[in-house]
Amino acid sequence: MIFMRFDLNPMMNPKSVAVIGASRDPSKVGHVILQNYIDAGFDGALYPVNKNISKGEKIIGQTAYRSVTEIKKPIDLAVIAVPAPAVPEVLEECGKAKVKTAVVISGGFAEVGNVELQNKIVEIAKKYNIAMLGPNCLGIMDPASKVDTLFLPTYKLSRPKIGDVSFVSQSGAVGSTILDLIAKEGFGLAKFISYGNAAYIDETDLLEYLMHDKQTKVIVMYIEGIKRGKEFIEVAKKVSKVKPVIVIKGGITEEGAQAAHSHTASLAGNSEAYEAVFKQFGFIRAKDLDDLLYFAKVFSSEDLPKGNRVAVITNGGGTGVLTTDAIYINGLKLADFSEETKKELRKVMPSIVNIRNPLDLAGDADEKRYSDALSIISKDENVDMIIVIVLFQTPGADSSVAEKLIYFKKNIDKPMVAISTGADYTQTHKLMMESSGLPVYDSPNAAASSLAELYKYWKYKNKIV
Amino acid sequence: MIFMRFDLNPMMNPKSVAVIGASRDPSKVGHVILQNYIDAGFDGALYPVNKNISKGEKIIGQTAYRSVTEIKKPIDLAVIAVPAPAVPEVLEECGKAKVKTAVVISGGFAEVGNVELQNKIVEIAKKYNIAMLGPNCLGIMDPASKVDTLFLPTYKLSRPKIGDVSFVSQSGAVGSTILDLIAKEGFGLAKFISYGNAAYIDETDLLEYLMHDKQTKVIVMYIEGIKRGKEFIEVAKKVSKVKPVIVIKGGITEEGAQAAHSHTASLAGNSEAYEAVFKQFGFIRAKDLDDLLYFAKVFSSEDLPKGNRVAVITNGGGTGVLTTDAIYINGLKLADFSEETKKELRKVMPSIVNIRNPLDLAGDADEKRYSDALSIISKDENVDMIIVIVLFQTPGADSSVAEKLIYFKKNIDKPMVAISTGADYTQTHKLMMESSGLPVYDSPNAAASSLAELYKYWKYKNKIV
Repeated sequence: MIFMRFDLNPMMNPKSVAVIGASRDPSKVGHVILQNYIDAGFDGALYPVNKNISKGEKIIGQTAYRSVTEIKKPIDLAVIAVPAPAVPEVLEECGKAKVKTAVVISGGFAEVGNVELQNKIVEIAKKYNIAMLGPNCLGIMDPASKVDTLFLPTYKLSRPKIGDVSFVSQSGAVGSTILDLIAKEGFGLAKFISYGNAAYIDETDLLEYLMHDKQTKVIVMYIEGIKRGKEFIEVAKKVSKVKPVIVIKGGITEEGAQAAHSHTASLAGNSEAYEAVFKQFGFIRAKDLDDLLYFAKVFSSEDLPKGNRVAVITNGGGTGVLTTDAIYINGLKLADFSEETKKELRKVMPSIVNIRNPLDLAGDADEKRYSDALSIISKDENVDMIIVIVLFQTPGADSSVAEKLIYFKKNIDKPMVAISTGADYTQTHKLMMESSGLPVYDSPNAAASSLAELYKYWKYKNKIV
Repeated sequence: MIFMRFDLNPMMNPKSVAVIGASRDPSKVGHVILQNYIDAGFDGALYPVNKNISKGEKIIGQTAYRSVTEIKKPIDLAVIAVPAPAVPEVLEECGKAKVKTAVVISGGFAEVGNVELQNKIVEIAKKYNIAMLGPNCLGIMDPASKVDTLFLPTYKLSRPKIGDVSFVSQSGAVGSTILDLIAKEGFGLAKFISYGNAAYIDETDLLEYLMHDKQTKVIVMYIEGIKRGKEFIEVAKKVSKVKPVIVIKGGITEEGAQAAHSHTASLAGNSEAYEAVFKQFGFIRAKDLDDLLYFAKVFSSEDLPKGNRVAVITNGGGTGVLTTDAIYINGLKLADFSEETKKELRKVMPSIVNIRNPLDLAGDADEKRYSDALSIISKDENVDMIIVIVLFQTPGADSSVAEKLIYFKKNIDKPMVAISTGADYTQTHKLMMESSGLPVYDSPNAAASSLAELYKYWKYKNKIV
């Protein structure tokens, strides 16, 4: 049994935030962070802090302070964006002002060999009981509580809508690109946490926090190293029973591990040991950034299947062939349609359609044909999951087909994903379907591997080996 | 030694085209094809043929004929889009009119069990010595000669610009989606050939044709089966010595092979036998549609490397770590920078930058820092290939960095690719770089696996095992 080391609630849902290092200069990190809070419509108290201002001055319209100690009001979260050498003093002041939590954005600590300076700020955080995230991180983004410590402007990095996927990243770079992609793909975010050097709060604390977080349905992690192996395993044992954890590990090769050490001073450790732990406790492994997105999308929107039998409906024969290959390569199988299903399909399908799985609706398939196929096949008890291929290049495929798929997605209680590959016309329809909660993939392997992870996780949860 | 069975030149560069089944009804395939020719600005003679019109009528402004036999002029290519049962008669007339080549778009032959009808049209083609493509195919697109038999409208399927990649696809669906993606990714097409049931002209003929085609630098193939195994091997032996062939095989699993049989009546055959042939003769294997694009892009724009030592330049540490992993997983290695390189880098890089490979330029890297790094590293004799990671979410990365990368791409004689992951702001810059000939990938694995294929092909060509 583990007890959480930190109360992270004041960090994730703060009523009052001090931005230390706030500035009027738009090129400064402290400026961008303050502006983000204002733009996001943060409705708590906001206190810019900058030791170089005169008393009573304002920064971006907010009354500013020279030190957190001057604020004289409770502060849930201090976001610290001052040069590394100034961090100890600032943190000391936070302690005196009884600040509950701190996010240290500043870099220049263990990752560049400044271990001593890093140890110093950890000591201060401990002394004053401040839950400290970082240093050398992007911090937190939570579209629901409107916390946004990211110093990257919104025109460069799109912010996702509110959702149920939480993403914990040791790397700010990987974190920010994934955040940007989540926004692009049209699915939603619960919490984003970039934790950098993990000097105090680490991946185990964050994993445990998200395990209990009601808003979070799916946890996604990018990690380079694990600080407290034993404790991590304790949490890992429990978390996958509660919700899926998708993990990508940086530094799985020897040379990658060396690069990781130079990046966040992580000791990446033995790759096989990680692999064994992840496998034993039902973590979902992503091999690349693509996978991370593919899997997060399907776990966010789909329920778990009850088996590995897949029905494929397509308007392109070749794509149906490649999808069949991908299904078997990923450990799934084609469903055998029941006699009833075959009979019903034969009644409504034109004679050119072979009644088999994959069901090739032919190049002129329209919304009626898709609709007929889906309403019959979704009822078949031999079918656990459905892949619908819609190639929008063909004459019959248009918005009405996309709408029909969205309708069935909302009314079928089996996992269902789509494959649509192509340029502008396709992308428009892809976004239409994805923003309505239907996962759409560009390639057969992306779709099949995502469903395979759903199936494997279902087996893990139900102790089927 | 093989002699080409067909002269495909009149099909690929026709001076005169008859569209049989041309129609005034925009929903008809024959209408779309005729319109495509007109829209593309085809400058040869164009003859719409429709047996139901009255003499002297026009279709889309072109004088129409009731039969090719009425045209009384030489016809290089007949595009046939009439119902399957009418094809034999139409083809017979083509023979009498001495039409040189024919593309039979119409479906309804062996792929739906109508083997007899298919045999019949092959007999007619043989009798009159007509080089016949299809049936059950999309036909040909060639942006240079303005041949476009695709019946898919341009708003649904973007047409690529003129380039050096030729794509042969047994499946119309796979073909059209890839064509659409080629246009989206901003690289260019030499010839697109969808050959469907391969009743007469088959994959071996097309491969041999493209081997000799001067416009084609890279050949990409989607195949489900091979009709003439022995002859294919004869061509395969020669082609990879001349130019790279990227192949994706549909039906590599038993169930996929069954689906392929139902699709194009292909006997997919033993998967391991295909695998062995492809490997022996230096074909580049794509496992999924994604790969096909990734590899085509890099072979189209890059020269071959002279080794497997990769330099990585990045503005995101975590992405550098993942790229290092991907490099080793794909059989490449990190280059050891020379002492000279390290000394030069140390002179110009700020102190926060560790002089090592991957070279992490830090989150505030701007065009100057990228430029300094590239000009030094590109000269290092220990470096065979370069991966440049630009995360456009970061403060310093903007269009000037993209421009700098394009400049170096044009001035460095080593393979160089970029990784940029993200939404709108990133996509804009990605397109900017790709349309200037720099391949850009979304993920570390996509970039590393593409360079690995370049390296493997270089080894094949130089007989290094």
